[in-house]
Amino acid sequence: MSATQTKKIEIIPSTTSKINEVDFENLSFGAVFTDHLFECDFIDGEWQTPTVKPYAPFLVDPSTRVFHYGQAIFEGMKAYKDEQDAIWLFRPDENYKRFNKSAVRMAMPEVPEAIFMDGLKELLKIDQAWVKKGNGNSMYIRPFMIGTGTGVIANPSDNYKFMIILSPVKSYYAGEVKVIVAEHYSRAANGGIGAAKAAGNYAGQFYPTNLANKEGFQQIIWTDDATHTKLEEAGTMNVFFRINDTLYTAPTSERILDGVTRKTLIDLAKSEGIQVEVRSVLIDELVEAANNGSLKEIFGAGTAAVISPIKGFSYKDHYYELPKLENSVAADLKLKLTNIQNKLAEDTFGWTVKV
Amino acid sequence: MSATQTKKIEIIPSTTSKINEVDFENLSFGAVFTDHLFECDFIDGEWQTPTVKPYAPFLVDPSTRVFHYGQAIFEGMKAYKDEQDAIWLFRPDENYKRFNKSAVRMAMPEVPEAIFMDGLKELLKIDQAWVKKGNGNSMYIRPFMIGTGTGVIANPSDNYKFMIILSPVKSYYAGEVKVIVAEHYSRAANGGIGAAKAAGNYAGQFYPTNLANKEGFQQIIWTDDATHTKLEEAGTMNVFFRINDTLYTAPTSERILDGVTRKTLIDLAKSEGIQVEVRSVLIDELVEAANNGSLKEIFGAGTAAVISPIKGFSYKDHYYELPKLENSVAADLKLKLTNIQNKLAEDTFGWTVKV
Repeated sequence: MSATQTKKIEIIPSTTSKINEVDFENLSFGAVFTDHLFECDFIDGEWQTPTVKPYAPFLVDPSTRVFHYGQAIFEGMKAYKDEQDAIWLFRPDENYKRFNKSAVRMAMPEVPEAIFMDGLKELLKIDQAWVKKGNGNSMYIRPFMIGTGTGVIANPSDNYKFMIILSPVKSYYAGEVKVIVAEHYSRAANGGIGAAKAAGNYAGQFYPTNLANKEGFQQIIWTDDATHTKLEEAGTMNVFFRINDTLYTAPTSERILDGVTRKTLIDLAKSEGIQVEVRSVLIDELVEAANNGSLKEIFGAGTAAVISPIKGFSYKDHYYELPKLENSVAADLKLKLTNIQNKLAEDTFGWTVKV
Repeated sequence: MSATQTKKIEIIPSTTSKINEVDFENLSFGAVFTDHLFECDFIDGEWQTPTVKPYAPFLVDPSTRVFHYGQAIFEGMKAYKDEQDAIWLFRPDENYKRFNKSAVRMAMPEVPEAIFMDGLKELLKIDQAWVKKGNGNSMYIRPFMIGTGTGVIANPSDNYKFMIILSPVKSYYAGEVKVIVAEHYSRAANGGIGAAKAAGNYAGQFYPTNLANKEGFQQIIWTDDATHTKLEEAGTMNVFFRINDTLYTAPTSERILDGVTRKTLIDLAKSEGIQVEVRSVLIDELVEAANNGSLKEIFGAGTAAVISPIKGFSYKDHYYELPKLENSVAADLKLKLTNIQNKLAEDTFGWTVKV
């Protein structure tokens, strides 16, 4: 490991705090940021001094590479405060590993673990007053990296900026979600970057999602781009289908994000005695299951919303409404998972990590 | 048309010039920028005052949308100076139309023609001393737009910044280019954003291109992601194949950029009496043509390099070297086209537009 990994974090505290201006009961997701951020630049092949400093804008040249060639990756994580005011992370190693997988795919430098993890912990410590306790409250964590080299030539950047910013959030409720199954548009190519948490994967979804919105659907269930028959993701989340009492979710691939909530739910469901099958579900199977009544639930899984139940889906201009259930697996798993995350239930899995 | 389209351009001249520090005989492509840039922000649904002002860095919030969700598009264009010191653009309407097509696909606002064209012309006028004359000299023009709204939620940005920056360039020589045909990686999905000039399309190519470089190939010939049999683009360029005396190039599609140089070469070649067929060429056809000697040339076509001849290609670990030709169609078309662009030959097509 290089010497840069052990460079001491420089701390530049803010002289003022915005915390009293924030209404923590009415937070718009991802819109409010804490007093500080973590930053570490990669210049001439070296990670520079990692720094916790006041959250503030920074200067960029108009020819900054990220604006032109799109090298930009991120992670979404959450921190929670327990009843004793300790702060906990949920499976941060998974996000760290995925971040560096994304970095490799986008030809960006891998961030040393000491920079990523120690930076995150120092940042959470200095802004600990911003982390609120209780199920429903959490601190959304956004590590990201962008190409900061300059010049309009389509090569990888020479310089990069790695940052972590923090946004206090309430539990995310998307309202009633109806989805439409993609018959034309798609989010990822075979041999493409769909498995990377790359900025470009998101921008490409906005236009088809806007079209879906106009038809009355909040999200799209993405299908494989070659045949549009395999159900792959829902909006920006992984997707689960409950047919009878079995949960199905697609295997991860180059086209599908290896979601931390997805893999957590697979383990949690199995521990509850629920049968889980990791395999591609085809649209024809889904339609058949909807028609014969065996399709009980569909839900999205991701860090922001944890679990987002889906009310019904549309395919080839036909809308299939899901049954209203008294005891849904989605609601049960969400409660169990958020209780573990918030340290309100015992974590027998070893998923939670104290800051 | 809204009133914003006719807002007068504000001109803020630079008090100093960097022009005497620039070695115009030794320009690295896309690395040097002129004294000014053009900027117009889109805020709250309105285009703001378009401005020509000194080239300088600008401030961005760490949560700026483009860093997280990748709404970023661009164009590549060139301007040329004739022997009478007049400045000419080459088919700027094509770039303008494509820019707005990209904007629509990436859920960004379309830029009004008056802002794009008048901004570009004002910028070229104020920095006209930076445009050098003679075949081989040109001004590379980079219009681009980024999502500048803030907040880490995966929705389209509310605010945008449209900019034009200028970089004086010499003719682009890529050296001897050997290419490898993509058997695994790909640049675009069916129903994806491959036809948009979106930043994210480029970042995804860097890693596979790095792998190709390590094997001794400078570029990749991209194939369709579903079957990897259709030859679609070469690196960041459209691609042409000459088999016997016919030129072949793939039809534009959702996966393939509608290149201005590509469509120009089709028309120019036809006017020279060369047969051009716009259809998918399959890798098996290419291998067969290479084996039976009918494959004469392969070349990339794009604004930066105009035409980039390819020396040979690799497929399934076999390398096929192309014949050395005394009179190549690539060299002939490149000379004819650059002479038209530089106003050294008559433009019977009406492609050149005086600034």
